[in-house]
Order: sequence, then C-alpha cells, then structure tokens
Amino acid sequence: MGNSLGKLFTVTSFGESHGPCVGVIIDGCPAGLAITRADIQQEVDRRRAGQSVASTGRHEEDRVEILAGISNGFTTGAPICLLVRNKDIDSSDYERIKHLLRPGHADYTAFVKYGGFNDYRGGGRFSGRITAGHVMAGAIAKKLLGTLGVEVLAHAVEIGGIKAKSVNYEKIKPAVEKNPLRCADPIASRKMSELIERVRAEGDSVGGIVEGIALNVPVGLGEPVFDTLDGELAKALLAIPAVKGVEFGAGFRVAGLRGSENNDLFTIEDGKVITKTNNAGGVLGGISTGMPIIVRVAVKPVASILKPQSTVDIEQMKEATLTIGGRHDVCIVPRAVPVVEAMMAVTLCDFALRAGKIPGVIR
Amino acid sequence: MGNSLGKLFTVTSFGESHGPCVGVIIDGCPAGLAITRADIQQEVDRRRAGQSVASTGRHEEDRVEILAGISNGFTTGAPICLLVRNKDIDSSDYERIKHLLRPGHADYTAFVKYGGFNDYRGGGRFSGRITAGHVMAGAIAKKLLGTLGVEVLAHAVEIGGIKAKSVNYEKIKPAVEKNPLRCADPIASRKMSELIERVRAEGDSVGGIVEGIALNVPVGLGEPVFDTLDGELAKALLAIPAVKGVEFGAGFRVAGLRGSENNDLFTIEDGKVITKTNNAGGVLGGISTGMPIIVRVAVKPVASILKPQSTVDIEQMKEATLTIGGRHDVCIVPRAVPVVEAMMAVTLCDFALRAGKIPGVIR
Amino acid sequence: MGNSLGKLFTVTSFGESHGPCVGVIIDGCPAGLAITRADIQQEVDRRRAGQSVASTGRHEEDRVEILAGISNGFTTGAPICLLVRNKDIDSSDYERIKHLLRPGHADYTAFVKYGGFNDYRGGGRFSGRITAGHVMAGAIAKKLLGTLGVEVLAHAVEIGGIKAKSVNYEKIKPAVEKNPLRCADPIASRKMSELIERVRAEGDSVGGIVEGIALNVPVGLGEPVFDTLDGELAKALLAIPAVKGVEFGAGFRVAGLRGSENNDLFTIEDGKVITKTNNAGGVLGGISTGMPIIVRVAVKPVASILKPQSTVDIEQMKEATLTIGGRHDVCIVPRAVPVVEAMMAVTLCDFALRAGKIPGVIR
Amino acid sequence: MGNSLGKLFTVTSFGESHGPCVGVIIDGCPAGLAITRADIQQEVDRRRAGQSVASTGRHEEDRVEILAGISNGFTTGAPICLLVRNKDIDSSDYERIKHLLRPGHADYTAFVKYGGFNDYRGGGRFSGRITAGHVMAGAIAKKLLGTLGVEVLAHAVEIGGIKAKSVNYEKIKPAVEKNPLRCADPIASRKMSELIERVRAEGDSVGGIVEGIALNVPVGLGEPVFDTLDGELAKALLAIPAVKGVEFGAGFRVAGLRGSENNDLFTIEDGKVITKTNNAGGVLGGISTGMPIIVRVAVKPVASILKPQSTVDIEQMKEATLTIGGRHDVCIVPRAVPVVEAMMAVTLCDFALRAGKIPGVIR
Repeated sequence: MGNSLGKLFTVTSFGESHGPCVGVIIDGCPAGLAITRADIQQEVDRRRAGQSVASTGRHEEDRVEILAGISNGFTTGAPICLLVRNKDIDSSDYERIKHLLRPGHADYTAFVKYGGFNDYRGGGRFSGRITAGHVMAGAIAKKLLGTLGVEVLAHAVEIGGIKAKSVNYEKIKPAVEKNPLRCADPIASRKMSELIERVRAEGDSVGGIVEGIALNVPVGLGEPVFDTLDGELAKALLAIPAVKGVEFGAGFRVAGLRGSENNDLFTIEDGKVITKTNNAGGVLGGISTGMPIIVRVAVKPVASILKPQSTVDIEQMKEATLTIGGRHDVCIVPRAVPVVEAMMAVTLCDFALRAGKIPGVIR
Repeated sequence: MGNSLGKLFTVTSFGESHGPCVGVIIDGCPAGLAITRADIQQEVDRRRAGQSVASTGRHEEDRVEILAGISNGFTTGAPICLLVRNKDIDSSDYERIKHLLRPGHADYTAFVKYGGFNDYRGGGRFSGRITAGHVMAGAIAKKLLGTLGVEVLAHAVEIGGIKAKSVNYEKIKPAVEKNPLRCADPIASRKMSELIERVRAEGDSVGGIVEGIALNVPVGLGEPVFDTLDGELAKALLAIPAVKGVEFGAGFRVAGLRGSENNDLFTIEDGKVITKTNNAGGVLGGISTGMPIIVRVAVKPVASILKPQSTVDIEQMKEATLTIGGRHDVCIVPRAVPVVEAMMAVTLCDFALRAGKIPGVIR
Repeated sequence: MGNSLGKLFTVTSFGESHGPCVGVIIDGCPAGLAITRADIQQEVDRRRAGQSVASTGRHEEDRVEILAGISNGFTTGAPICLLVRNKDIDSSDYERIKHLLRPGHADYTAFVKYGGFNDYRGGGRFSGRITAGHVMAGAIAKKLLGTLGVEVLAHAVEIGGIKAKSVNYEKIKPAVEKNPLRCADPIASRKMSELIERVRAEGDSVGGIVEGIALNVPVGLGEPVFDTLDGELAKALLAIPAVKGVEFGAGFRVAGLRGSENNDLFTIEDGKVITKTNNAGGVLGGISTGMPIIVRVAVKPVASILKPQSTVDIEQMKEATLTIGGRHDVCIVPRAVPVVEAMMAVTLCDFALRAGKIPGVIR
Repeated sequence: MGNSLGKLFTVTSFGESHGPCVGVIIDGCPAGLAITRADIQQEVDRRRAGQSVASTGRHEEDRVEILAGISNGFTTGAPICLLVRNKDIDSSDYERIKHLLRPGHADYTAFVKYGGFNDYRGGGRFSGRITAGHVMAGAIAKKLLGTLGVEVLAHAVEIGGIKAKSVNYEKIKPAVEKNPLRCADPIASRKMSELIERVRAEGDSVGGIVEGIALNVPVGLGEPVFDTLDGELAKALLAIPAVKGVEFGAGFRVAGLRGSENNDLFTIEDGKVITKTNNAGGVLGGISTGMPIIVRVAVKPVASILKPQSTVDIEQMKEATLTIGGRHDVCIVPRAVPVVEAMMAVTLCDFALRAGKIPGVIR
C-alpha cells in the first residue's frame, strides 16, 4: 500500500528496477486533453542517465508505451497507464552483495518490512529508476496545468556546497536546458563540474539543492487545515529518493528573521493584490497566494559509492565490508530537476481539480 | 475539505478561533486504551499561552470535554470527539480591521478561497488556536504509542538566530519541561529570553526552529513509494501554522556532504542492526530504520506585530496602513513544541496501525 | 475507523446512544450556502420517535446545536459540526441484560470486535439513534443540492408485506408528509396501521421497504468503474441500521426480464435525450442518466421485540433467555424515510462536487 | 477518477475493451504470498466467453502477464500489476453505430460525462471485458484469504425467471464447476439452457441472479458506521456491469417478516457462539458474525440484443433505429459467477487487513 498519490488526480506507481518495467497510472485526468507520446517521452528523456558529467549510471532507452487512457491524441477520461521497459539490466552484482546492507540505501528497512521477499536487485522499488513513472505522470500534469497557464520549472541551486547565484525566473528555464548540470548560473556550474570530476576520481559522491518554481498559480489552491498546499508538495517531493528536506520561500532562514522582515506586505499591481516580497514562497495558511511558489529540496549524496564501506551481512548477522561495483551517478541533482518539476505539477493538478479550476472535459 | 489526516488513525479538525469551540475527532483508535481527561488536559495545558516571556497572547481556560469514544476510562473503539470551548474572546479589533489584509496571515488567501464567507475573526480556521485540537489528538496518539514503548519529544533548538547546544536525548525532556522557552540549553535559553524582551519592546516578533525526536520507533513504519514516513511527517508538521520548512537528520546540510560522510554505516549492537551515525534521521527509503527519528521544523516569526504595516483594504481595493492591537505572542516556538510532538505522534500511530504493530484491541 | 463517508463532501459520524451526544462533521461543503439551524432542525424532527403508531420508542428533544462551520446564516467553508444531546436516557435495563446477546442486534459482533470495551448501552454506536447525525448531514446536503435544482424524496412502499400502490412523483411528497407512516397510498397506509397495532399487541415487529427518488439529477454523476453512483448510494444506504438490500430501477425484477423488455429506449423530449422507460433507475454504467434515480431498500423488522427469545450469555458462555423491556418501535420504516433521503442527498452532493457541478463558493 | 477500490488492499483498474489491454494493480498485498501465473490464469479462464450456451461473445486468449510485484513465485510487497492483451478485435461495427446510443449501455452517460472523448469501441471502459481485471485481482485476494481459511464461492440461482433449488454449501462448488451455466441444481440448469436457446433464436437476452457465499469468515470484519461489510460488498458488486440490486441473507424478504421470524437466535456450538438461522446473511451492524456471508445480486439481461431498437443519433440529435451485429452473450450470469467471487474476495481482504487479521508478511 502507499503507492498512490493525490485525491482527484491520482497517480499510482508500479514496477521494480530490475523487473519487466516501471510504470504509472494516472486516474482523474479530465477527458479531452491533447497529449502525444512525444510529449511524455520528452520528459522521460530529461531524466535519463548519461547527459552530464554527474550521471554515468545505467543507460536505458526508456521508450514510453501508452497502455490505456489516451486515444487519438486525447485523454479519454479513463485511467491512463504508461510504462517504460527495463532493458539494460545486469543483476549479477546485486546477487553478489545480496546480503550486505548498502549504507544509505533502503536495503535494511525493506528487508525487515517485506521479510526479505522484496526484489532487492537494483534497489527494487527503492531505486531512483522508479521516478521514471513520476516523470511520466508529471508530463500529463504539466500539459493539464498548461490549460490554466501554470508553468512549473526547477533548477540546481547548490551542488556539493557550491551555491548558484540567484537568476530571474524568465532566464532560468532556457539557461537550465542548455546546462548539463541544470544550473542557471554558468560560473557556479563550471565549478560544480570540476568538483564532480574530482569526487568521481575519489570514488565518492555529492549532494545538492534543487529549487522548484511554479508560476501563474491561481490564488486559492490548497485545502487546509491538513491538506495544505505546502504539506502536500512536501509529501510529494519527499517521495523522490534522496530528498531529506523541503522548505518554502525564506524557509529555514525564517528562524533568524523578525516579523517585520519576514512579513510580505500586500500591495496592488495592475488591479491585482500581490505582495512586495515573497518570503512566504507563494503559500499562506496552506493556500496559494498567486505569487510564485518557491520550494527547495535537499538532495543527499548518491548512496552508492565506490569506496569500500563497513556494513552488516544480514543473513549471517555479522559485520562485513561492502564494495559496490558498476556504474553509478556521482550526483543525482541534475536528474532530480525534472522529477521535482513532475511532483510539483502532479500536486498542483490535484489541488486545481479540488478547487474546481479545471473542468471535467477539456475542450 | 482537507480537514482529516491519517488513513487508519484519522484525525478530523473542526472549530474556529472565535466560534463556540475548537475540537477534534479521532477515528481509528483501538478499543481498550486507558486514557483519562487529565491525560489530554495535560497536553492542552502545555500549549496554552502565558507560560513564558515569549507568550503573552490570549488566555483561555481550555478545559477538555470528551463528547464521544471514551467510556469508563477506556477508548471504546468508536470515534473520539474532544473539544475546548472558546471563552476569552473580544472580536471588536478584528471588526475594525476586517478589510485590511494582515501581512503574513491567511486573510487574503482565505478571502479569495471562501469568497469572504470565512470567519475572519481571530484568523478563524487559520488561527494557531486550531492546534489545541492537534494537541488533543496527539495526547491520544502518545498514549497509544506508549503501548509500543515509543516516546515522542521536542525542543526549541533555535530562536531569533540564537542556536542551542546539542544535548543528549535523555536530558532533553526533563530540561525542556523546566525551561519556559522549552530549550534544553540553559545558556542559549537565557539569551533567547533577553532577545525576546528586546523584540517585544520594538513591537516585533521572532522565529526559530523546533526539533522533534521519536525514540524506540520499530523498524518498518512507512508505506513507500508515496506514503513515506518522512513525507507524511512533513505534511503533518506543515499543518502547524507558521512552519515553513521540514528536514530530517542531516537535512539541508546534505547538500555539502560527500556520500562517504553522509552514509550511515551499519553495525550490530546487542544483536540488533543499527547505524553508527544517524544522518538519515531514522528514515531510509521512506521507512523507519529503528534509529531515533529526527526532524526539524522552521517556525516563522509571529505575523501579528505591533509595528504599523502597509497593506491593502480588500473591500475598497486600495492601499492602507494596518495597526494591529491586542495581545500577541512575540515568539511561537515554545508553544509549537507540544504541537510538533502531537503531529509526530499522530503520524506515527497511523503508520504503526498500517504496519500492523498495534492490535485492534488493547488489553 | 470507517466513520467517514464521501470524498469531497465528507461526513464523519460520532457519538453513542447513551453518551453525551450524537453528532456529525461535514467537511467539504462550499462556503456561502445559506442555511439556518431551523433548516437542520426540521429534518431532525422528521426522524424523531412518537410521530406514528409505528414508533413508540425513546423520546428526545433533539435540539440541533451548531458548533462550527456556519456563521451569520451561511456556511464558511470550514468543517461544519452539528450535534444533538442525549437526554431521555435510562440505561438500567441495558445493565441488566448486558451479557445477553440481543438477537438481530450488533451486540455479539461489537463485543468481539471491540473486546467488550464498546459502549453497549442502548446499542452504543449501533443504535438507530446514530442516524440523527446522518439526517443533520442530509439537511446540509439537501440545501446544497437545492442550488442545482435537485430534489430528494422517499416514501414507504411496503410494510409487513402490505404493498402501496404506485403514485406519481409529484404527489408523493405532499402525501407522505401528511401520512404518519410516510406512505403515499392512503388505503395501504390504513392497512399497515392496523397490522402494526396487531403486531404491537403480540410484542412483535415488522419490516418493510422504503423507496428513495432523486429528481432533476444532472447527467454525468458517478465515477466508474468502482466509485459508481449506484455503488456509493448502496454503501451509504447500507449504513442505515436494519437495511438488508438495495435495488435500482427494476431491481431484482430484471432476473425475469428479457433484454428487449428491460432496455430503456432513448428518445428526445424538449431537445433533451431521455429514455421512454426507467428500468435503469436513472443509472447506466454507474453514471446518472438524467432520469429520476429510483432506489429501494429493504428494512428488516425491529430487532428489539417484547417476546422472550433464547440467546447466549456471553460472559458465562451458556444459553439463556432474554426478555427485552422498555419502549421500542414496532416498525422503523416511517422513521427510515428521512434517513434514506439524507443518505441519498449526501451521496449525490459528493458526486456533484466530484463532477464539478457545484462551485467552490455559492453566491 | 474512481478506478480504485479498497483502503488497504487497493485494486486499481485500467484498460479499455478495444485498447491494447485490460489490467489491474493490486497495492497492499502483503509480501510472501505464494502465487503463480497459473493461479491467476485459472480465474481469468473461468470468465472467458465460449464456455456455455449462454456465452457466444468475443473469444480472447486472455493470457495473464505479470508486470510487477511478483517475483520467484511470491508477492514482494510492491504493487502487483497484471494484464491481459486485447486481441480478437473488430471495431468496425462500433464505427458504424458510433453515434447511435445503444439502449441499456453507458453510451449516453459516457458521452455526456467525457464529452465524446471516451473510447466508445466495444463500450470502452464500460465493457464487461473490464472485469478480466476484477478477476485477476480476485485471484490474488482468494489466495490471500486462503491463508485465513476463508473460502469464497458463487453460483447462478436464477436465470430468466427459472429458480434453482437450494443446495448445501459443500455441494455447490463441485456442482457449479461441472455445470456450464454455473448452476448447482441440474434440473433447473437444464430448463435454463432450453430457455437460453429459445431466447437466442429470438435475438433477445435474459437476466438472472447470482448468489455469493463466503465461508469461515472470522467474526469482526467491517468498519461501521459507514465502511460496513455489507455496504462495501454492495459497492464492489455494483462495480460489475449489469448488476442492479444487492441483498444479504433474507434480503428483500425481510419486508414481509416479523421480528420474531427474522431475528437469528444465538446459541453455542463446539464452544463457539453461532446463530440458529442466518437471515442476517453473516452481517450484523455492518460486521461479520462468523456465519456464512450470503449475498445475492440481480443481473440484468444483456443489453446488446439482435432485435432492432429505436434510439437516438446523438450527433444529429434525432431518432433512429439501431441494429446491433456481432456476437454477444445471451445471458451473462454464468460468466458473472467468478466476477462475483472476485469482488467478494477483494472486499474481504481489505477488511481482513483493516482488522489486523493478516500479517504484514506471509511466512
């Protein structure tokens, strides 16, 4: 249980890293939304390995298959089923280390929870590969948000302690798509690349921070007191493996601010109520304010490192040394960027439907 | 909608700040749990105003009433309904500023979402007072977790930029209960008090950070890939007004760590698998590891400040100056401590039930 | 768990027969709906005891209290909490028969499920009294449906084997409200009354059938393949104690019909697609057709009868004879009529919201 | 939305009649359940066309594919994804009658609800073919119930007005599996076959009644007041196309019974509390009593008949005559039998999990 997300735009994830496929069902997408396989493929391609120095992991073709819910280029109102096949699979290394708990991975927690019956190969359900499904759902969600004029984007703002300079919203998207690390600041990006090369040579890995932004979000999304917009975004983003923290607007900086500094003052612009600053990150009382939604997620360093690590052999219940082979990403941050966008888009769709902002049929 | 939390241990919140009462329904608590009105009252008393220099806001008796679900000192298996009456209410100041959007509050978002029909007095549903219901639910949840040996505690670790020193888990609880700011470091606490006095004199407010800890949590709580333990904790904690960020274990620090630093190495202690460090904050793959769960929330400065602020008159759609009167907390952090505990306890109960760790009847 | 119904218009029931109160929370009602205490009281009064020969049970004042969610005569968008206090309570007879399982009641199933901790007095959560909450929720739902022009009504069509003649929809409502048995056929009603008197003299009880009708339901309500309109109606109606069957349109008669008899042929009337007959009862493929929704529920005879019955003493685990004292209804059918309307209205509201037929704010 | 069923054992349906496949996801099945493709295939084979005189519809190989959640013959705890491909598809007749509303089908309601974007070919999502997914989920559910000793069976008790004699539970299963109409009474079965032949010759169809039975169900399943065992069973069974009514135990007969006739008296047998009769059909207060669960569903005559029918051309908005070609079942009752079993099994699994009767890992 626990593999569905969203109340009206409901995403159900399935598949394992080394099973036949990874897929997703989207239930609740209104009928009549124009969408092609290529639209979805494009998002899936953005999260594929091998696009930057940071990512040298497993290569997959990841061809999107539509099994249900889309017909003649439009959604039908029926559940949409999408999947990508798993192809580039060599499970032998996992067989070798089957009983050695990989530090930073879910091997131990999964072993206990599923009594050892879980598919451990490649991390099974806990693999980053599962996010291929997230991204397919996000592709549908982005298209649907597009009918409202809502745009979702994300970018790397920190890698391995190197922080990017702040960049205007309009410049982020084009800059990010040209940059292999998906960082909009070219100078920081260069330093990050150098760091990653160094860290790779050491057989180590690094983490970072991704910032997600949603523009043109209508006022009024969010269903407090419990189904808040920020709460559901946080939950959705923490479903990305490796995310360890989520903050909105000024985020953890609020701990050092005065009320007079942190309060965003209201004013009127072009006949609309806006705030002069956006420390709230676009959310007040769990509801969207109409200002950009700003969320940052902390992404931990890739857990699979080449350096030997001490651990436990769970079958023999004794200490052991683990050496992980194979190809692994050094830094997952650039590939997390489209996944952050996807989870934001999916959550915003759910709330837009709950608020009645999207009709039952798109025409 | 959106006022229920939890799948098997379901908390439904109701009531407004200046309406007849604030209350909560807990559905899903197993029958046979011994609990008294005093157990619940004790938690409610911990979040009351007037216990420290930080809190000079509205004073309420907050006497807990049990309307359903508890009989002869035991839960019956039926939904539990608890409430506290609202008493110390003067709505006249809210009448005066009815059309002035208070910066940092949900006045604007609620006005748009509910078409002006929402009860704006005292913030209505968006008042911190609503957390009296959270805390009542938490009291039940804590008792239920007690049957598993799980303990939940929280403390203030930062106020207005002043950071507390790290303290051993065993020392936090007793230290916190003696300290008016609920900070376990007495030296930092003194500085925080001085800062708060200063800030009060300026008619301003400050924010801070609360750390929540859960001890003895069994391995295996959490239902990935979407209903992760960390994701649901984050969602529950973001239902506390003023929380703007949530992080687990090393949290945002992971952005600057190497994999070899951040990975918690497995080892064996007393025949049990543990990790040597706890950068994961007790959660891997969305599932509890058995190590302490460590979560920190960023609490923004109180939005109601005495300093005049520029804002918008929403009825006349023109700029205006707002001066808020009445008594308001300068820093909500100490009062947030029991609320953080409550939301953690509620979430852990839900997952303990989902994992089958709690029987249908407590005997 | 299990005390909430509905996805967007969510009704949560609480309270026990002999506890402080019986109540309900409605979460998801849009803001701006005009509703008074009197509107709700009127529905509650319709289900009170003592209005006909059939009902001689416990008399309660059942004064509706509004605890949250309605302000100045309008819903606020916040959860609505309504309750009636329990007053006319003598639990002594229940104390006497505490360990004797009353046939036809939930004493045994509740005893096992809740380990004997359930409030057994007056049936506790399993009492028909719980439906006072259903009816309060129904009052809100009816008002909300009224904004769409949807009308819900019900009537007794069979009592103790005596069947009422079919009556035109327009005549049912006025006829029913004048008739103490809520049967629109005055001749059948007279016979039913005579039967009930006879059955009362024998210390026995009788069952019957209630038919519920919803008029002007828009085409398109229902979310197949699982959340069908008929499926959710059936679930909601089976939450009325004593209901043992639910059928739509031709119902069980379809077992003997040919396709050519049962198929409702489409035609056009006033520019609208309608069907010439309505064997479907207004539902095709789990979705409303725009024709009247017709549902019938089988109501079992009241389980509490004055005749001695053999049963089991659950404490001593031996056979025993049970003699039930006190006042009990002979036939619950007339009082079930407003409850059937309530459960239909609640379900239709949920689907109308899901289909986007009701705006977020009523103006 | 609306394509998921169950809270802890959650079944999500996808696929269209003439799309690539029909499938299902089962989320919440504990890890460690032994199950093979053959176990699932066997149930799917039971609902295939062409096994009796009643069924002459579309022939499919219906080979079950396992895409996720089962590994090495055991469930892994991950979501299980199963599907059958659609093969024997000729959509040309549907193209011809695309704008003619087929009476008794969901053509009109789907057209309005999904704005004409729904896949109308073969009824799309409203085809009986969708129940191949129900049956695959049921196969998993039956296996899981088997670990508790619970058995689910169903049989045809009425076809076209011809009623079968009552048969002992133990004899039903073997008798049913030998009988092409799945009726345990061979004499009635012969008459039913003759009737069906006659009706086929007339180009017409007939309905009937299926009875479902669950044996060895533990006491205590069901979560009143709203998530009752009978309510959820009814909802699940009404998700079978063509079902128009559901009744438990004495069902609609209760309308003519006295309380003294209908009440099931408690007694003790082999140290266990049982009832002497089972008019309750195994459910009291929405909770299982431990007696067999008995439910009957009314199945309407197949809507696709060869006789010409008058209807509406929805594009031209004018009356028209419809002549349906192709092969269609004359009576769906025998094929509905395994589907009734499946929906019962799925519902019982959900409640067994909710009641904590099934462990998180099967060993």
